[in-house]
Amino acid sequence: MTAPSVTESRLERARDALAERDLEALICFPSSNLTYLSGFEDEPMERHLFLFVTPERALFVAPEMYDHQIREASPVEDVRTWSDDEDPTRLLEAVGDDLGIGEGRLLVDDRMWALFTQDLRATFPDATFGLASEVLEALRIRKDEAELEALREAARISDRVSEEIRAFGPAAIGMTEAELAAEIETRLEDAGGAGVSFETVVGGGPNGARPHHRHGDREIEPGDPVVLDFGTRYEGYPGDQTRTVVFDGEPCERFLDVHDAVLEAHHAGVEAVGPGVEAREVDRAARQVLEERGYGEGFIHRTGHGVGLDVHEPPYITSENDRELEPGMVFSVEPGVYLEGAFGVRIEDLVVVTDDGVERLNDSPRTWRPLEGRE
Amino acid sequence: MTAPSVTESRLERARDALAERDLEALICFPSSNLTYLSGFEDEPMERHLFLFVTPERALFVAPEMYDHQIREASPVEDVRTWSDDEDPTRLLEAVGDDLGIGEGRLLVDDRMWALFTQDLRATFPDATFGLASEVLEALRIRKDEAELEALREAARISDRVSEEIRAFGPAAIGMTEAELAAEIETRLEDAGGAGVSFETVVGGGPNGARPHHRHGDREIEPGDPVVLDFGTRYEGYPGDQTRTVVFDGEPCERFLDVHDAVLEAHHAGVEAVGPGVEAREVDRAARQVLEERGYGEGFIHRTGHGVGLDVHEPPYITSENDRELEPGMVFSVEPGVYLEGAFGVRIEDLVVVTDDGVERLNDSPRTWRPLEGRE
Repeated sequence: MTAPSVTESRLERARDALAERDLEALICFPSSNLTYLSGFEDEPMERHLFLFVTPERALFVAPEMYDHQIREASPVEDVRTWSDDEDPTRLLEAVGDDLGIGEGRLLVDDRMWALFTQDLRATFPDATFGLASEVLEALRIRKDEAELEALREAARISDRVSEEIRAFGPAAIGMTEAELAAEIETRLEDAGGAGVSFETVVGGGPNGARPHHRHGDREIEPGDPVVLDFGTRYEGYPGDQTRTVVFDGEPCERFLDVHDAVLEAHHAGVEAVGPGVEAREVDRAARQVLEERGYGEGFIHRTGHGVGLDVHEPPYITSENDRELEPGMVFSVEPGVYLEGAFGVRIEDLVVVTDDGVERLNDSPRTWRPLEGRE
Repeated sequence: MTAPSVTESRLERARDALAERDLEALICFPSSNLTYLSGFEDEPMERHLFLFVTPERALFVAPEMYDHQIREASPVEDVRTWSDDEDPTRLLEAVGDDLGIGEGRLLVDDRMWALFTQDLRATFPDATFGLASEVLEALRIRKDEAELEALREAARISDRVSEEIRAFGPAAIGMTEAELAAEIETRLEDAGGAGVSFETVVGGGPNGARPHHRHGDREIEPGDPVVLDFGTRYEGYPGDQTRTVVFDGEPCERFLDVHDAVLEAHHAGVEAVGPGVEAREVDRAARQVLEERGYGEGFIHRTGHGVGLDVHEPPYITSENDRELEPGMVFSVEPGVYLEGAFGVRIEDLVVVTDDGVERLNDSPRTWRPLEGRE
């Protein structure tokens, strides 16, 4: 749980940002924005649960059954509840009157369901609507020291499990992707992680050529390149790293060249990171290596994504993003090459922009060999 | 994966419903609606991935890296992709022109993120917007035989694990809630389930008084009432059942009376179910028992929720819902009493409305005793 003093200072900064921009209110729904501002965490749900933040005040609208949990998790003292036999839009109207909002601009959570934005539009027909990220992105994109510590520990846990799994070597042959994924997830939990950052990816042979293949019942064969992309959360912050390994046997010649090219692109991307650098320069550095080595066509995604309470968040490391990197930004550098029907290779670390360069959060071996030294 | 013939017939019914109501298009985002109509399944994501359905056509707008996966999962042949170096709103505009939409009424997925509804509103400024449930709820609320079979099997798996866990008896004393939850989840997987329906609830002693407490590091003590609420998915459909048990030792007198009252309310709720009955009559039947026995104040939520691809979906069994029940509707009957600081009791089965009454999907023992016969 986030310390109340931390969420209070975040709320204060959000209120200041609203006041500066002459915005009436920010309305969060269960999401990372809500967790960031209040400390209360839950899955998105079909019941009306909102945090209203105005330049002066903050209050929850919540189902009665969440009352105690919200009060325990959050320093926001004003919690207004509705019960399952009441129409929650009545409470929205009353809150709108009380806060004096509905004539100006309201920001809704970027991940709020249409079900609820429709209700808010009906309740506040004279308001205009924008997205919470208009003010929260600037707050969230630079991580503070406590956030960085959580991200470092999440990365350490993932690295440790990555090394343990690679040590399976020949013992992994004949295991299914799903069995390997289960091993990974058990070990992440045992190592102190809390749940997975995203559904674990184990892509063996041709399945590795699908960047978002999860895992299935295909058995690992000798010589198979296997994409292992996973992470766990520590104090709410996720790990996310990828290695591509061959557990046993000899991979094909083409794989050797592709892996070498992806590794070179990965290092080139990381080396390009620093304060004042545009995000797209990092993408360019990695992409250029793969283009020069003849694999540009196989690199079908961006080079990276920001990581924080959301495992995919700004800054996105794309060929078009000219945003300048700043100290405290955390993102992945994960070039990959995908050869449909054959195999895929992806190598991913998380990095943090520092005052004078870059810090890698991951340091497990990047070689495709199961048990050799670090590259 | 849903059979292509099934999704094709669902798509056809959706297109007919759009035509009947003079609607221009239905726009789904990764959600149960998208899975229901196309067979393609993924988590909500920050990239633009939509299924457009008009009275005549259906097409995907998707990130390039999802192209193969969508084609494999779905019978929809028209898949238009954008790559990470392109602006996806350009593709939205082109698709809008091609489909000839943007002057009439568009329905967006109920769970579409505000991030994307804002984009659609900007792309189609002359359109009016509604929710996908306006047409899809009527299709999804009555389950077909294949859906019912999946729900029955998911219920059987949950029942089996419930009985295995209750057989722990005294061995559960001293285990933490989190350890019990891990045992439950491993066994659900071993019994053929695929992932949990929702985060497993193990609420011991006072934690059971929070209906949405998940699990923590509190150890189970002798005499503790423990709320066990969990389920797993089978062919995409979730189980969801609750039992409240005392693993060892003697519970307090008050618990005995509360458990007896909740069980009576549970049975009264189930007995009220049948075709043509209003949803609120089921709520009333359960609520009345608890009120008469002096526990009305402690029953702080609705009696149940529909269950299908979403674990919470219509019909909701509340005191206000006058919707008539129809054969094929599936929902929970789960009265509970919550005594803050002391304990909670909830007893939940899933039921399906039949042509002449009700079928229970769960039949594991409802007694609080760990190993005795069925009630």
